[in-house]
Order: sequence, then structure tokens, then C-alpha cells
Amino acid sequence: MAARREITGFSNPTVKALRALREKKHRKAAKRFLAEGLRLLTDARECGHVPEVLVLATSRDPHPLLAELEAAVDTAGGEVIETSPDILAKITGKDNPQAVAGVFAEFDTSLAALDRTSADIWLVAQALRDPGNLGTMLRTGDAIGAGGLILIDDCADPFSVEAVRASMGAIFTQKLAQARWEDFEPWLRSGPGQLVAASLRDAQPYRGAPYAAPCFVMVGNESRGLPEEYELACDLRVTMPMKGRADSLNAAVAAAVLGYEVLNSLDR
Amino acid sequence: MAARREITGFSNPTVKALRALREKKHRKAAKRFLAEGLRLLTDARECGHVPEVLVLATSRDPHPLLAELEAAVDTAGGEVIETSPDILAKITGKDNPQAVAGVFAEFDTSLAALDRTSADIWLVAQALRDPGNLGTMLRTGDAIGAGGLILIDDCADPFSVEAVRASMGAIFTQKLAQARWEDFEPWLRSGPGQLVAASLRDAQPYRGAPYAAPCFVMVGNESRGLPEEYELACDLRVTMPMKGRADSLNAAVAAAVLGYEVLNSLDR
Repeated sequence: MAARREITGFSNPTVKALRALREKKHRKAAKRFLAEGLRLLTDARECGHVPEVLVLATSRDPHPLLAELEAAVDTAGGEVIETSPDILAKITGKDNPQAVAGVFAEFDTSLAALDRTSADIWLVAQALRDPGNLGTMLRTGDAIGAGGLILIDDCADPFSVEAVRASMGAIFTQKLAQARWEDFEPWLRSGPGQLVAASLRDAQPYRGAPYAAPCFVMVGNESRGLPEEYELACDLRVTMPMKGRADSLNAAVAAAVLGYEVLNSLDR
Repeated sequence: MAARREITGFSNPTVKALRALREKKHRKAAKRFLAEGLRLLTDARECGHVPEVLVLATSRDPHPLLAELEAAVDTAGGEVIETSPDILAKITGKDNPQAVAGVFAEFDTSLAALDRTSADIWLVAQALRDPGNLGTMLRTGDAIGAGGLILIDDCADPFSVEAVRASMGAIFTQKLAQARWEDFEPWLRSGPGQLVAASLRDAQPYRGAPYAAPCFVMVGNESRGLPEEYELACDLRVTMPMKGRADSLNAAVAAAVLGYEVLNSLDR
């Protein structure tokens, strides 16, 4: 086992650098992000993502998965740091921090890196502002066997601590792409793919609609929904029953209800 | 139109009292809660909930719905306060506050006040900790035509600003009950009702399961899920496909996917 560096001071420059990863500008500059929790880091490892820096609370309990994680970081030439629970709480911004956190290199999120034929379903979010919704969509994508999540226009940062946390590890299992609509649409039309949106505009019932793989399931911004132009560019517009006063669902909920319907339809 | 009181000082006692409603202990003491936004307050009014105090930003634009709201508050003998956008932001804790907020009396949330025959679907959440998830469940309940949301054991406060906001007005359209499991189970069994949970334990596929009205769709705590005892007390345990590494969905997502399935099944 490689030597462990122990950090005891709140003002230590490494603590400051790790803590800065909670802010988007510092993440972008460092091209690194934070993830926390043994289960999540184990998911990451099993998907081939080993943290460059592993931060362990001195108060941690021994665990075989933790030992495997440490070994993987050592093998990859990464660094293991030990620190107090208080300092770890300061780094992750969480009152009851997990006993372990890791620093990962951000992924390539170019559309060109996506293999659309690798999955039957892809989730697409446009101008999604809430990192919790974003992470929840990743988590749902994992559950329905989607290939990944494509973020259109100005979305919340998928590498934020909140999004990574809400993804429950799916940030490591789902592919992630970021693009402007002007780039996404030509890319989509350059190969097979059905673009489907939940919409109130000239839509058919979501249940029993003719979904086709690879199916790109798109939801829009939390307040404004999808721009009309984007809806009109869809191959299929579907609508869910709305029995009450509201005319829309939470964005992550809409993606899940529709995503499960597509899964059930394509799996038949 | 009744006289309007204008408040200009941040340290005004009324501002302090309103702001305090963001904290649970003050809400419980006052038995009052805050809701914001013209659309939400209009939904409330149309459902028979008129705020006791209406707070308007001096910078507001005139709007016919706002005039109706003011008239309703006057008729009900409530108070209308005008204040600056900055003070309104301080009250609601939101950087870009809506131009209007209201103070409402908390509702009766006893099980005894629920008429289970008034709807085919009821949502049930056990130890739900996230106010955003709670509000999202209310919003979903409105969409699927549920009668309301029953909160079991220690849940987030449904009257918190975050839950009310996430409910998008459904806090006023959905019935709300709060109970311990020991009280909920006898109440449930004292009349018609099928208790259904998303579960991995001896469960059948959620698609095509024999749902029956009134159907009580229950989800558990975000981290721990439902206690085994509660799952075993269910009439039906169903499971959604999980194609990836994760073995669970976000609680509000699970409620929505299952809730829409029940709706589709009962509507047939």
C-alpha cells in the first residue's frame, strides 16, 4: 500500500482546492469533479473510473470495498489522503459526510463520442436548470437501460456535487453529452434515431405510440418547457393524461414516465 | 378596495413574522405557511383557499388575476401588504421572488378528514425526507387524478416553502394527511383500499398487475426504502424493470411511474 498523506488543517491548500470543486468555474478550470460515498465510488470503479485523488475520513470503518478502492487508486498511480470528518464535511459541503470522496477527471461530453446504436433509448434534456432533476434523469436512464443523457443548450452542470449525488452513481454508468440545439439536430439526423417529446401540441397519447429504437426521449426546461421549434422538429409528440389542474409534470418525472413507456414498448 | 398597509423596513415585525414562516417551528407555532406566485395563489383561490395575508411587491405589473386575488382577500377580511421586491425576497428566501406571496392557514391533515371513496388513487409516502420529492409527489398526484398524499411516519414538512414550491399549486388541490404507521394501517383496513408498494421482495411486474380502486400507492424513504413490515402488509408488491446497476428509482419518480400505471390500468 502506498504512503497516505494526512491533512489536519482546514486552511491546507489541498483542502481549499478540493473544496473549490464545488464551484462550477473551478471545476471547469481543473476539469475535475467530486463524488462521494463508498457505494458510488465502487460503482465508478467497476465502470472503469478510478479517482485521481481519494479522500478518506480518519474515522472510517474498515470495509472490503474500501480496501479494493484504495488498491485501485494505488495501482492507477493516484493519491490517497486521510483527513478528519470535519474537513471532509467542509470539502463536500454536507453535514453528515460520507467517509470517502474522490476526485475524478471530467469526461468527454462531445456528441461525436456517443455511439447511438449502443442503446435503444437515450434521454435528452433541454435547458434543464435543476441539478437534482439532472441527476435524477441519469439515475432513471440507468434504470431503463438508456445509453445516456444528452444535455441541450444551457443546462445545470452535470458534474456539480448535487447532480452527481442525485444520480446515485449513474453519472458513471450513463454516457453524457452536451450540445447546442444547432449541433444536436444535424447530428441526430445524420443517423438513425426517433426524436420524441412530451408535448401538448398536436400530440398523441403516450401509451401505445409507435416508438422506435434508437428512441431519443426529450424533455424541456422546468418553467418554459421546450421551444416550439424543437417540438416541431420531433418525429413524435406524445401527451400523458393530466387529470388535475396542472398542465405539466416535473421534468425528471415526465422523462421517467415516458422513458418507462418507451422501454415497455420496445421490449415487447 | 380596502386600505393597503405598506412596509418599507427590513426590521419591521411583520416582515420578521412572515420570514419566520420559512422555519418549521415557527410554522407549527403559527399554524400558517407561505406560498408564492400569482399562478399558485390563483390555483389556491379557485380551490377555495384565500390567503389571510397577501404580500405584493410594489414593482408588480397589473394583472386581472392579481386584482381578483386582492378582491378575494378583501372579501374574506384578509390583509393586503405592499412592500419592496427586496423585502419580498427576504421573506420568501428566493433571489428572484415572485411579485406576490400569501400566508395561508395550515390544513387539517388528519386521516379522519379523508374521504377515500372520493378518488381511485391515493399516494402514500413513508419517511420521505426531501421536500422537493414531497412537493413533486403532490404535483404528480394532481396529474394522475389522485385524491391526495398520505405522509407516514417522519416526513419532510409539506408546508415548507420548498415543498409548496415543488408542488406547483397541488398543495391546494390534493388532500394531505399525516399519520404514524400504527394509525394508518388500522384506518386503511377499516374500509375498502388496496395497498401497493414498489418492492423487490416477492413482487410481480408492475405492468399489468391487478390494481383495484381505491388504490394506495406507497413509496418509502429515499435511502432506506420501506421497512419490511410495511411491505409485507401490502396487498400487492410490484417491481419496475431495472436494467442498469441501480436497484431503485428516486422516490418521486417511482411514485409517478407506478401511479401512471395504476391510472392506465383503472381507466381502461
